[in-house]
Amino acid sequence: MARRDFHPEEHPFGPAVGRLVNRLADLPGVGRKSAERLANHLVSCSKREALELADAIRDVKERVHRCQRCFNLTDGELCPICRDSRRDAAVVCVVEQPRDVASLEATGVFQGVYHVLGGRLAPLEGITPGDLTIDSLVERVRNQGVRELVMATNPTLEGDGTALFITNLLEGSGVKITRLARGIATGSVLEFANREMLADALRGRQSF
Amino acid sequence: MARRDFHPEEHPFGPAVGRLVNRLADLPGVGRKSAERLANHLVSCSKREALELADAIRDVKERVHRCQRCFNLTDGELCPICRDSRRDAAVVCVVEQPRDVASLEATGVFQGVYHVLGGRLAPLEGITPGDLTIDSLVERVRNQGVRELVMATNPTLEGDGTALFITNLLEGSGVKITRLARGIATGSVLEFANREMLADALRGRQSF
Repeated sequence: MARRDFHPEEHPFGPAVGRLVNRLADLPGVGRKSAERLANHLVSCSKREALELADAIRDVKERVHRCQRCFNLTDGELCPICRDSRRDAAVVCVVEQPRDVASLEATGVFQGVYHVLGGRLAPLEGITPGDLTIDSLVERVRNQGVRELVMATNPTLEGDGTALFITNLLEGSGVKITRLARGIATGSVLEFANREMLADALRGRQSF
Repeated sequence: MARRDFHPEEHPFGPAVGRLVNRLADLPGVGRKSAERLANHLVSCSKREALELADAIRDVKERVHRCQRCFNLTDGELCPICRDSRRDAAVVCVVEQPRDVASLEATGVFQGVYHVLGGRLAPLEGITPGDLTIDSLVERVRNQGVRELVMATNPTLEGDGTALFITNLLEGSGVKITRLARGIATGSVLEFANREMLADALRGRQSF
């Protein structure tokens, strides 16, 4: 017997809570039961805590947009990374999405700046160079003293294809183009590595 | 190498997103990584979808309060269950918290109404009868033609103690007092019981 879900108008706490449960259940990775629990929390927590969350959501929708230079997300004119004078603006890491910037930043390893393409080339879905920020990237390379591009598109057929397209486009520009190392993931188990991962790891083997 | 958490002012998407991540990570059961993913979704989803969530949170804080009769949550004067003329107002199920009402309603088995105590007696924590809605319950029994009280406090020492206290208080009032069948495990919490367990417990309720 499955647990019954409440239509918002029939929620035992009334439609206001019912609507909140539905909105929360729309979020990725949030099921009905989690949505009920979150709604219960928001009903019973302090008004201040709940309104801070509501305001933070509103704030993000009203203020966050694309960085003028790198197309990362930001609430300023330039994003925090482009604004940071300690970053090396001559080394540009090319990623598909802003969330990739966040993932790479979380490592604390990269000291350069980024360029967010806004996706990857996918001819079958009709996503062509004009849909991405490739023109702006070429312009940055030509006119803003970029020394190295680090390709960090996803290691998929389409991500690799996009990186290759850009590499061809910039042939003769003199910029050094690298890509993220391919191999086995630290903490993983060889036994479960797939053929591509192991082949990459073998081809790219490094001196100990 | 552990993933680095961003201070809100240092978030790579700027402080507005950083604050939203922090607010989301304050929610129960939402870790840093989930909070980042939810914030990414809220940044990239339609403005309408995000503001509907923000408004639903605000709405709940501004409009939801206790039902005047049973102390369940509601955005009306009475809660949807007390308002429903098809429910048998002579059979009152006594629970600790509004979330218990939601759990019992999800079974679809109970046709009576509720009384939310607002907690359970816990002398060691200083929670005494005056802290709960026991006076109102006694008043309902005495003056509103209640035929049966179904005790559905949590099956814990304190929940059982609270049910026993109320039973003693109403001795001689003529009301029939039952309790949920022990299909529910002693020491567990009603909120997490599944629908089968709760439905069996309702059907098999026994004289106190």
